[in-house]
Amino acid sequence: MNMRSCYLFRGLSPSQLEKITAITGEQQFSKGQWLYHEDQKAEHIYILKAGLIELVTKVEDSIEIPVTVIRPKNGCVGVGALVEPYLYSLSARCIDDSTVYVIKQTNLGQLMGNDPEMRCTIMTNLAQKMFNRLKETRQEVKIHFMNLVRSVTF
Amino acid sequence: MNMRSCYLFRGLSPSQLEKITAITGEQQFSKGQWLYHEDQKAEHIYILKAGLIELVTKVEDSIEIPVTVIRPKNGCVGVGALVEPYLYSLSARCIDDSTVYVIKQTNLGQLMGNDPEMRCTIMTNLAQKMFNRLKETRQEVKIHFMNLVRSVTF
Repeated sequence: MNMRSCYLFRGLSPSQLEKITAITGEQQFSKGQWLYHEDQKAEHIYILKAGLIELVTKVEDSIEIPVTVIRPKNGCVGVGALVEPYLYSLSARCIDDSTVYVIKQTNLGQLMGNDPEMRCTIMTNLAQKMFNRLKETRQEVKIHFMNLVRSVTF
Repeated sequence: MNMRSCYLFRGLSPSQLEKITAITGEQQFSKGQWLYHEDQKAEHIYILKAGLIELVTKVEDSIEIPVTVIRPKNGCVGVGALVEPYLYSLSARCIDDSTVYVIKQTNLGQLMGNDPEMRCTIMTNLAQKMFNRLKETRQEVKIHFMNLVRSVTF
């Protein structure tokens, strides 16, 4: 099992990874099936083993905006389970038949509680990733802004 | 000195806060002066004691987009100094005469290296904040997206 494909676990020792493997289950999802929905209580983290997951957000209940596609090599979703108020911030749907590793938030929380170094590594990885995603998302805002400026100017 | 106004230090013990106070300097900036620029090496974290700081980003070297305004009560900027590749992701300018506390990244890094619990608390706070900012920034993208949809539809 390649836990390292999840950026959260980068830098953990082999024995720390073993402990996480021990609390990790496996689940099958069919194409079109949802892993979770935006604003739901975030009880699990999912690591994509095989398949494809799309993250989306809804506006006004009817329009869906695609945010990103998750592949096995970068495949880790549901990190709302690691930060207060423990809600998923996006919805996740399989766009191909998928196999995912599932980690229950309470089990991981317990492991991190017993191993502050593990907690520290995971939270540092999460901070790094959120910082990068924030930069990418600001780029999107810039593009929209420039389109707006152009549409007003020309 | 109210270090608690910086979200990064929430949850630290009085003795941990004292250690951080010991490596913290104070600096005056005039209205219009820049603290740092986007993509510069991030060598300092700044905590606003008094005044106002505006965070901005540039597009195409000429147009400036305001991102947010920092006030003393929520005043902490420059956290690019805590995550690789240690670059500022935005530019920060004083929009009023301001007094800021300055913490050198290398000094804070040393403190955190000697106190993994401090590191853990700071990085958890950072992850939480980045997660929330990401959600806010996605809301902006949604608004732009909806404006776009409306302009096409009507």
